[in-house]
Amino acid sequence: MLNVGLLGAGRIGAVHARTIATHPGSRLAAISDAITESAAALAAKMGAEPRSTEAILADASIDAVLIATPTNTHSDLIEAATRAGKAVLCEKPVDLSLARARACQAAAAATGRPVMIGFNRRFDPNFAALKGAAERGEIGKPELLSITSFDPAPPPVSYVKVSGGLFRDMMIHDFDVALWIMGAMPSRVMAVGAAIVDPEIGAAGDVDTAIVTLAFAHGAMAVIKNSRRAVYGYDQRIELLGSEGLLSAGNVLENTVSKATTAGISSAKPEHFFLERYGRAYAAEWAAFVAAVESDGPMPVTLADGVKALALAEAATRSAQTGAAVDPASLLQG
Amino acid sequence: MLNVGLLGAGRIGAVHARTIATHPGSRLAAISDAITESAAALAAKMGAEPRSTEAILADASIDAVLIATPTNTHSDLIEAATRAGKAVLCEKPVDLSLARARACQAAAAATGRPVMIGFNRRFDPNFAALKGAAERGEIGKPELLSITSFDPAPPPVSYVKVSGGLFRDMMIHDFDVALWIMGAMPSRVMAVGAAIVDPEIGAAGDVDTAIVTLAFAHGAMAVIKNSRRAVYGYDQRIELLGSEGLLSAGNVLENTVSKATTAGISSAKPEHFFLERYGRAYAAEWAAFVAAVESDGPMPVTLADGVKALALAEAATRSAQTGAAVDPASLLQG
Amino acid sequence: MLNVGLLGAGRIGAVHARTIATHPGSRLAAISDAITESAAALAAKMGAEPRSTEAILADASIDAVLIATPTNTHSDLIEAATRAGKAVLCEKPVDLSLARARACQAAAAATGRPVMIGFNRRFDPNFAALKGAAERGEIGKPELLSITSFDPAPPPVSYVKVSGGLFRDMMIHDFDVALWIMGAMPSRVMAVGAAIVDPEIGAAGDVDTAIVTLAFAHGAMAVIKNSRRAVYGYDQRIELLGSEGLLSAGNVLENTVSKATTAGISSAKPEHFFLERYGRAYAAEWAAFVAAVESDGPMPVTLADGVKALALAEAATRSAQTGAAVDPASLLQG
Amino acid sequence: MLNVGLLGAGRIGAVHARTIATHPGSRLAAISDAITESAAALAAKMGAEPRSTEAILADASIDAVLIATPTNTHSDLIEAATRAGKAVLCEKPVDLSLARARACQAAAAATGRPVMIGFNRRFDPNFAALKGAAERGEIGKPELLSITSFDPAPPPVSYVKVSGGLFRDMMIHDFDVALWIMGAMPSRVMAVGAAIVDPEIGAAGDVDTAIVTLAFAHGAMAVIKNSRRAVYGYDQRIELLGSEGLLSAGNVLENTVSKATTAGISSAKPEHFFLERYGRAYAAEWAAFVAAVESDGPMPVTLADGVKALALAEAATRSAQTGAAVDPASLLQG
Repeated sequence: MLNVGLLGAGRIGAVHARTIATHPGSRLAAISDAITESAAALAAKMGAEPRSTEAILADASIDAVLIATPTNTHSDLIEAATRAGKAVLCEKPVDLSLARARACQAAAAATGRPVMIGFNRRFDPNFAALKGAAERGEIGKPELLSITSFDPAPPPVSYVKVSGGLFRDMMIHDFDVALWIMGAMPSRVMAVGAAIVDPEIGAAGDVDTAIVTLAFAHGAMAVIKNSRRAVYGYDQRIELLGSEGLLSAGNVLENTVSKATTAGISSAKPEHFFLERYGRAYAAEWAAFVAAVESDGPMPVTLADGVKALALAEAATRSAQTGAAVDPASLLQG
Repeated sequence: MLNVGLLGAGRIGAVHARTIATHPGSRLAAISDAITESAAALAAKMGAEPRSTEAILADASIDAVLIATPTNTHSDLIEAATRAGKAVLCEKPVDLSLARARACQAAAAATGRPVMIGFNRRFDPNFAALKGAAERGEIGKPELLSITSFDPAPPPVSYVKVSGGLFRDMMIHDFDVALWIMGAMPSRVMAVGAAIVDPEIGAAGDVDTAIVTLAFAHGAMAVIKNSRRAVYGYDQRIELLGSEGLLSAGNVLENTVSKATTAGISSAKPEHFFLERYGRAYAAEWAAFVAAVESDGPMPVTLADGVKALALAEAATRSAQTGAAVDPASLLQG
Repeated sequence: MLNVGLLGAGRIGAVHARTIATHPGSRLAAISDAITESAAALAAKMGAEPRSTEAILADASIDAVLIATPTNTHSDLIEAATRAGKAVLCEKPVDLSLARARACQAAAAATGRPVMIGFNRRFDPNFAALKGAAERGEIGKPELLSITSFDPAPPPVSYVKVSGGLFRDMMIHDFDVALWIMGAMPSRVMAVGAAIVDPEIGAAGDVDTAIVTLAFAHGAMAVIKNSRRAVYGYDQRIELLGSEGLLSAGNVLENTVSKATTAGISSAKPEHFFLERYGRAYAAEWAAFVAAVESDGPMPVTLADGVKALALAEAATRSAQTGAAVDPASLLQG
Repeated sequence: MLNVGLLGAGRIGAVHARTIATHPGSRLAAISDAITESAAALAAKMGAEPRSTEAILADASIDAVLIATPTNTHSDLIEAATRAGKAVLCEKPVDLSLARARACQAAAAATGRPVMIGFNRRFDPNFAALKGAAERGEIGKPELLSITSFDPAPPPVSYVKVSGGLFRDMMIHDFDVALWIMGAMPSRVMAVGAAIVDPEIGAAGDVDTAIVTLAFAHGAMAVIKNSRRAVYGYDQRIELLGSEGLLSAGNVLENTVSKATTAGISSAKPEHFFLERYGRAYAAEWAAFVAAVESDGPMPVTLADGVKALALAEAATRSAQTGAAVDPASLLQG
């Protein structure tokens, strides 16, 4: 039984709290939050104890922590938690600064404690089925990957301003999916971005719509499309063309009902947003973390994976600004 | 090159005229119609000669006739044409009277001339693909066949009154499909019918909505659903459950475009009616007839097939009236 | 907070145990089973107390019981539990004997305690969405209902022998769906059944494949197709043709991945069986029961509903045996 | 009645010959080909006259010519035909050289004769339905266009060598679709290409797989994916994200049959290649040309459109070689 401390009692923290508590192999012992009332309320609901982060890290009976705090605290907390001997599952991204993330990676590695980054898409049953089929060679050699990832609506501009920008905040998930499926770092990143959904986002220096192309050394390529607004719901799809076929993972619709009338045939929308679409993924992610910790096995998503995805985000940000292709390896040197 | 006379210049006659003229192995020589202006107009358009039916049948250079006249003339024309030595493709149904159809079958057989009945669904590429897969054993032994066949809108009541009723006029197609796919006559026919679309149809003694169940001697079974009104278009589907799987042939939609908005996802309707949906089937039907005549091979759909379908229609009509199951074999004795 | 006793610790009992324990408004207090070890094991896992059924019924602190015992105990337990003042959720069917079920209905009614029958399909999000659209009049007046309900594989013949037969054991769900959607009792039931999947089932006096047609007084009609074997998985679909359109509720597939190769395009199978497909339905069913009990409102599925479905099962059984249509009202008289 | 000369009796010439001959408003008078036997054979089959190109152009009774000769003759023939007073429908691309195409455009414009370029995709019923819906504002303002265009198998390397390369030969269609749907020239073209399907194609200096991103002045963007090999068939899809929704035009499958077995659900492949998929488009294209000529109206696809698409192909070719973004306007100056 894994004794777990949850750092962060916000919206995603509450999701994780339920996941931790429901999993037969883990126990939610304590919850901390900068807003102590939040920690207290969630802890009361979940039968856990509200504590300070320091107290959680200092408690030797706590085996693992799940970090669901704001992004700017991730690196510090990963370092502190691993120093304290905890196994760590940290929400994405590792950090907004690639340099800081790399330093964190080094520091955590020095402790020998396992760190997993919460890229939930890897645990979506549909994407996992696609990845499995690709790995079994069912479509031959992967050649052209295409990721569609549209949010239902843009976040508030106040959030956008501290988010690190679309590439680090939103497309980071898709960079990780691309790295996961292609199994290699691209040698070239080319990005186009624009603020066409909400001019306020542009005024804040960010984009809300973007296309990024990744070229891999062996000739394969990938394209990622992001938009902050798909009014019909959360659009999350993957297509992989290989030498022997095409794999596609489609959206999950709210239900299977269709209606045929004089107006045509209509069906339900995709599940609204990440809490609905990736509900099962969060449970699978946590189960994978628990299994890896218990078996002392390799983390299914590593801190190095988080750093790589961040390097692509950094490269895309630069490419969108300059119009030139960027080699992400150049960002990981030194 | 098959020299062809077309009997009947109505709506379906015009379709066949184009098919005959376009086929590289046939030539549309002459057209007749009770309304001589219709024959003249269509003939002019198609570069054929308007003539009387008698003149067409008497012309030794005419190899084959396609009968697209009103149903009550079919038997007489089949007999006359085969006596005149023509190969015959006749629109369904053979006749509204089962006894008359059987007499026609005997008379035509006596001439030794080939007669094909125009059950167009057998030549629909989708249904033909389903039938092919079933014959190849791809789903094992057929167990439960389900046919959905809805028209977009009911015909005028004036037509209904002379149509022979829904079972002989409309479901006759589905009876043929059931016989074709199951490869046997059912031993029991149970029907339910009602006039719920249009009370005028009920007043005319007919039904507009019906479900017919067929039980086969070896235990397999089939169900046919008919409605005269599916406001979204022509709904033509087949499902066949077998011991090793399920085959489904779906509708053909007007186009492949879908639209996702806040209202859901919408797509195009099924193709509107038989001229659209079975356009390719008419061409394939004619090609199959020409090929069979030219090779002196068996007709792909025989007059006996037309009689069997009519026997099922007769059985269903009786069952719907009495509420009791009817064995169609009892209708074919004597 | 509803204090709940669970009667029956078998496979479906275990599903309900988790549902009761997870629901924020109910508490699983005690579990009984004829096999006391089963009750003990499940109780230990769920943090509940293993007890005898008598002890549970005698405990005034228990507000409600969920009956998940073998069918032949349902009527007795419903009567005992309502006499003991409990609210009851009982698994379907009420009883294999229509007379016994009606007596139970009368006895339970006399206690004034609420009884709900566990027809899980009503709580499937897809079927519920179809029912909601129909009720809102989105396709006009319902005319022709079609239910496809195929199990992945037949049960053991030992089970078949005590099951009451396909119509009472399996199609009972579909009879309830038909009654629920059409909102009326049919005036005529016509059934065809055969044992073509497994001759042993036939030797046991049952059928494994069946088609039942229901004719309603106002002219609407329904057809239900059942097979004990659809090798591709649990096939659970509903179609409703109305005067202004068609509603269809399709299968839930295991995932949304498709693969296109030289062999065609392939996708996942339907979810395997009822535990997978109706997992969410069980939770919604329990939530509806709790809400109804807490608010003293009407049960979403009543004991009368259970009796009506059973009357249709009885009518279908007789029709399949005699080949004649049966009016279910005749079975509910006296 | 438009009297038509066909220049080119190859594979696509034969398709056009049938289209011209079948259209009620046009008559196929004469056919020329560098290989006189080809012209003679096709002419015999179609009831047309085999002639030299010069003779066709010199014949005042010929109103229009359809140019279906090799690409390197297009510009010369467009100029000669328009000088001879003919209306012209020319297969894409106008030329492999952008400069030559622009000179041709100027020369043809000077004659005042109408020239249409045969971008068949605009006449595909599915793409046309998508374009229509977009123009009617059904998804608001277009923001992100995505075009998937994969051939079933690469052409022979001998063809690749004279094709002008993937961007001019294959993606030229998609560039036109992008210009058509977005209604503007992009300000930036970024391309990635690789020869991963067939190294021989790489040895010939071309690519077989490519992703091109187009950035438009107003912030909208587009991405085009091309592969010379999709083993499952011709993959031709368009998606357009707008401020109020998403439009998708899917593939046309060979039939609507699906098969569910223990292996999953399988359905038919996309129609194999352009002759199948765009069969109806060729007829609609010709009908639009005839209608425009007869009404003296604007050509539905102009020579200027052909030049613009070629400019994008040129820009993409350069971008793929240099890794830098290219502004196509820079290629159209001077």
